[in-house]
Amino acid sequence: MAKKINVGLIGVGRMGWVYAEDLAYRVPQAALAAACDTNPEIEEKVKTLGAPKWYGNYRDLIEDDAIDAVAIVTPTSTHREIIIAAAEAGKAVFCEKPLSISLEEAHEIQRVIDSTGVFFHMGFMRRFDRGYRAAKEKIDRGEIGSPVLFRASSRDPFRPSLEYMDPRHSGGIMIDMGIHDIDLARWMMGEIASVYTIGGVLAYPEVNEVGDIDNAVVTLEFANGALGVIDLSRSGVYGYDIRAEILGTKGTLKVGYLRETPLTVLNREGVRHDTVPYFMERFERAYIDQLQNFIEHLSAGRAPSITCADGVADLEAAYAATLSFREKRPVALTNP
Amino acid sequence: MAKKINVGLIGVGRMGWVYAEDLAYRVPQAALAAACDTNPEIEEKVKTLGAPKWYGNYRDLIEDDAIDAVAIVTPTSTHREIIIAAAEAGKAVFCEKPLSISLEEAHEIQRVIDSTGVFFHMGFMRRFDRGYRAAKEKIDRGEIGSPVLFRASSRDPFRPSLEYMDPRHSGGIMIDMGIHDIDLARWMMGEIASVYTIGGVLAYPEVNEVGDIDNAVVTLEFANGALGVIDLSRSGVYGYDIRAEILGTKGTLKVGYLRETPLTVLNREGVRHDTVPYFMERFERAYIDQLQNFIEHLSAGRAPSITCADGVADLEAAYAATLSFREKRPVALTNP
Amino acid sequence: MAKKINVGLIGVGRMGWVYAEDLAYRVPQAALAAACDTNPEIEEKVKTLGAPKWYGNYRDLIEDDAIDAVAIVTPTSTHREIIIAAAEAGKAVFCEKPLSISLEEAHEIQRVIDSTGVFFHMGFMRRFDRGYRAAKEKIDRGEIGSPVLFRASSRDPFRPSLEYMDPRHSGGIMIDMGIHDIDLARWMMGEIASVYTIGGVLAYPEVNEVGDIDNAVVTLEFANGALGVIDLSRSGVYGYDIRAEILGTKGTLKVGYLRETPLTVLNREGVRHDTVPYFMERFERAYIDQLQNFIEHLSAGRAPSITCADGVADLEAAYAATLSFREKRPVALTNP
Amino acid sequence: MAKKINVGLIGVGRMGWVYAEDLAYRVPQAALAAACDTNPEIEEKVKTLGAPKWYGNYRDLIEDDAIDAVAIVTPTSTHREIIIAAAEAGKAVFCEKPLSISLEEAHEIQRVIDSTGVFFHMGFMRRFDRGYRAAKEKIDRGEIGSPVLFRASSRDPFRPSLEYMDPRHSGGIMIDMGIHDIDLARWMMGEIASVYTIGGVLAYPEVNEVGDIDNAVVTLEFANGALGVIDLSRSGVYGYDIRAEILGTKGTLKVGYLRETPLTVLNREGVRHDTVPYFMERFERAYIDQLQNFIEHLSAGRAPSITCADGVADLEAAYAATLSFREKRPVALTNP
Repeated sequence: MAKKINVGLIGVGRMGWVYAEDLAYRVPQAALAAACDTNPEIEEKVKTLGAPKWYGNYRDLIEDDAIDAVAIVTPTSTHREIIIAAAEAGKAVFCEKPLSISLEEAHEIQRVIDSTGVFFHMGFMRRFDRGYRAAKEKIDRGEIGSPVLFRASSRDPFRPSLEYMDPRHSGGIMIDMGIHDIDLARWMMGEIASVYTIGGVLAYPEVNEVGDIDNAVVTLEFANGALGVIDLSRSGVYGYDIRAEILGTKGTLKVGYLRETPLTVLNREGVRHDTVPYFMERFERAYIDQLQNFIEHLSAGRAPSITCADGVADLEAAYAATLSFREKRPVALTNP
Repeated sequence: MAKKINVGLIGVGRMGWVYAEDLAYRVPQAALAAACDTNPEIEEKVKTLGAPKWYGNYRDLIEDDAIDAVAIVTPTSTHREIIIAAAEAGKAVFCEKPLSISLEEAHEIQRVIDSTGVFFHMGFMRRFDRGYRAAKEKIDRGEIGSPVLFRASSRDPFRPSLEYMDPRHSGGIMIDMGIHDIDLARWMMGEIASVYTIGGVLAYPEVNEVGDIDNAVVTLEFANGALGVIDLSRSGVYGYDIRAEILGTKGTLKVGYLRETPLTVLNREGVRHDTVPYFMERFERAYIDQLQNFIEHLSAGRAPSITCADGVADLEAAYAATLSFREKRPVALTNP
Repeated sequence: MAKKINVGLIGVGRMGWVYAEDLAYRVPQAALAAACDTNPEIEEKVKTLGAPKWYGNYRDLIEDDAIDAVAIVTPTSTHREIIIAAAEAGKAVFCEKPLSISLEEAHEIQRVIDSTGVFFHMGFMRRFDRGYRAAKEKIDRGEIGSPVLFRASSRDPFRPSLEYMDPRHSGGIMIDMGIHDIDLARWMMGEIASVYTIGGVLAYPEVNEVGDIDNAVVTLEFANGALGVIDLSRSGVYGYDIRAEILGTKGTLKVGYLRETPLTVLNREGVRHDTVPYFMERFERAYIDQLQNFIEHLSAGRAPSITCADGVADLEAAYAATLSFREKRPVALTNP
Repeated sequence: MAKKINVGLIGVGRMGWVYAEDLAYRVPQAALAAACDTNPEIEEKVKTLGAPKWYGNYRDLIEDDAIDAVAIVTPTSTHREIIIAAAEAGKAVFCEKPLSISLEEAHEIQRVIDSTGVFFHMGFMRRFDRGYRAAKEKIDRGEIGSPVLFRASSRDPFRPSLEYMDPRHSGGIMIDMGIHDIDLARWMMGEIASVYTIGGVLAYPEVNEVGDIDNAVVTLEFANGALGVIDLSRSGVYGYDIRAEILGTKGTLKVGYLRETPLTVLNREGVRHDTVPYFMERFERAYIDQLQNFIEHLSAGRAPSITCADGVADLEAAYAATLSFREKRPVALTNP
């Protein structure tokens, strides 16, 4: 068996803990070698995963020569600083989406990744979901002919806290939420030429307080002429509903599901089943498969499956979608 | 049993024949009293439906005092002339969609209907499909809270002939095809404030010859702030796929189906079932239920379920969607 | 157009009225030429279907030389007498299931049909449902390899009246209800060699009063070695649920559906849709297609699709299933 | 955090390895403290799971005082000897199904478990599948009223090796395969009073060589009068298909699914999706949840969720089903 990749995990909040367990247990070629968080109370919990080193400061982790790669699962505002430090120290980098909420920062990160040449994997777990993956393979094999329309929905079962939604931290609904669909759209259809967005505060009046919206529809024109539309909602109160459809000239592909428990109840009120509660139930496996892919490509000296340039391009499109909404006009992307 | 309404059918082409049979057999309070077509060869076939009178000219039919109402199923370009003649003769009128492909004509028709005060039912059979109808009832009862998003797809399994698609006759994809979804959108969500359209010739290059497109996405902003999106395709080659979803603050409603035969085949290639071939398989019952509604409302002295004003407003929105595509900008509707 | 077949309908109760409308309107080559019922009040209603002759006594209808064929939709206890009279008068005969509840009567009918050589179609509308028909075609084409298992459920949404259920009139649940599944089983798999039945009064204690049961499971061994199982229920309170599955060595076929309106509701309680209310919603089309087939085969001089011998064999199997339940042992059929 | 339970795993074949990983990683309160297999080559692989002790002989593992509990995943023929040794050493025991293929052995095991009073969990992972579990909860809460019918299918996508199928080792299809459904039936409906089985070699003629069958249908009469039917197949070539339905007087519950990837493909051949490949894809989570339950109940001093008596009763019913097939008669269970 090949030597394991020693991964240092930076950020062990709710999402970071999932990465910690996945790295410790579910990715055979990876070792969770160290963890770092500003909250010292997590140290003991992390140790139960098999004695990884603990750092209170990410810079110390990065300086640890035993660490081959870092996985960054910190608040987005810290990404730039940590990525640059890790890249300059020569570590391979995995970074959770979004790369940044600032285009300037994103471009700066891109330059550093380019100049240092480190392996950088931009985290978009949906690309590793078995449904999306199988769809992509079928598109690439020509099974649906020429793709004509990308049509996706992303719906959260409830809104995040207003603090979380505040565009100063989240970047707003396009960057926080829509960027997943934008990334899938680019992956499956090609680069985006222009976008047009409508939206509003339609479900939670208090969202006006922070200056974000809770529902939106974004149309996409791809550089190759194909069409796209994404609808985003914070008020999919019936469950976590993530779907996409790719219509081609020979058929269509539908990805997604909306059922958690394999039980159907039939009574006088009709036929009924449950829905998917939230993102971890839906994408648990995709997170693992993404880490697996990160480690495999890194080990094998292959290029990362999702690049820093993807992170930048996705952000540019999400920015354009935000601008389109504000200025009520279609916005062309500069270099699709 | 109340006296039957004597209906004169004007236009007995492919679609008109369906109306002829429905009026003769499936709408108890209606009698197919007369039929009219410029093609004399149809007379004999129509007679098999139980001896209706035959006219080679619609004006003669309209002058027949025994006729209470006319059902107009002729080419769209003839609607204005026939409707006006029938209205001025005091006949109740049923007219297949679209009202016209000309806004000027549509407004003229509206004025005549208003001034004569005749009963006028604008034909949009989807409003009588049991799925859409049940959805509308649930929305009206508040079962999904406040409607937030209207999301619809209309896909034909193949393109019509180029002659049919020619915008000089059909009005183009928005008016010929999108008007159904526009009508549903207005019915379920309220009036449309502005539209934005993208589209292209993506499946059949020869469609460029007649100046239409084969795929389009239209976003809708409703006057009440809600959002909408319609995607239209002439290349839904897998089957006739007509769907809508209405997302509200308390739930979502999905209308439509994509299966004809109640047979599921499971073998080594997976689980498979068929699709709906075309519109008559999907909406056979809706056509009957619409005629039934026309006759019932007329008999009972109630207002028509779909008015001439609906036909005009739908056409205005379809026009705006066409204009938006041509000028690549959002288009506001003048008086939503 | 070929001459229409003049059909005389005998029995115009609830079910008979459906036949009346179908013969009058929906089967092009048939004419509803006469109707007969012991209830004189129905005469006027029948006349609205286009002036058929009316008879208060079936013998008069049978003697009418203008009548080519009779459709018998009377209570089962009268089948023998009417069929024999019609056959001896040389009329083609369509008879609703079951042929009889008495094996002796069934054999007598068979002898008369054989000796007179009249065209006799045994009514089992399920064979004309598009799902079952497509399944049968796939089996015959070898698409699922060699059939291994026939597995069917028939569930009524509520129990019939006790008067109706009384085995002295209905023959009991096997003959009244299970005979449909037995007929499908024979059609798809081949003749039945032996049966074993369990059952009981599990949902409606009052069913004990009339000596029938409300739920049952019948296993079938076919002469070719294949296996079968049918479950019957009068307490499918969630809807009318008629399903079958045919497992073969290369795949499996599932027939049936359990949804009426194409509307899916998703809210915090989950995903929900309605069910099929009752048999007419489920099999409306199959009844029409069966009559169409009866008329077509009769017109074309082809053998009937379902023969008197089928009716007899189905009844023999239903009898054996009843006997098995009573004697708590497997029962072999005498001449499968 | 409470002290972890030290589990010694006996048997590290294909299935045992799954248990090894689950105990090492996915059951928080368990520690994989030791492993044992007669194949010495597995030692190194097991060590990668975090340094458990290794034994070449189960008796040494059982004598290890550091071990709290054993999990037995060895060939069925060794169960009796290992269970008795472990019980006499006072270890808690988890044993994969079936308990034994010999009723005499099963009774002997039961006596030792009773006399030693050790904690014994009989492994039937389906009871921990979220679908079956939710169904059981709904039944217990009365949501479907009084259960009337238990109806289950178990279908393997291909047959096991003839060596595996040989009834001298497997006990035959009822004991190897049907025992899962029998266990679910008893759990959901209550004790079984009598059984009747039909079956045959219908898909793989070579199965005759070892004296087993490849398809069977078993009807069940429960002591409370309810009905049941199980169909078993080694030729579900379209996928791994495990379903159950419980019909009650107020509704019905359907458990199971038949789809692996959340992708639907629609093209001219219809609508298609994949199936579940095999048992680990279907029940991966249930195996983990079962071990979790074993550890939790053991830690908390609660009775095991599935007892040795369940294992014995399931085996008795499977034996009766086998006898019924051989003697072609219903077989009553002695003490339901």
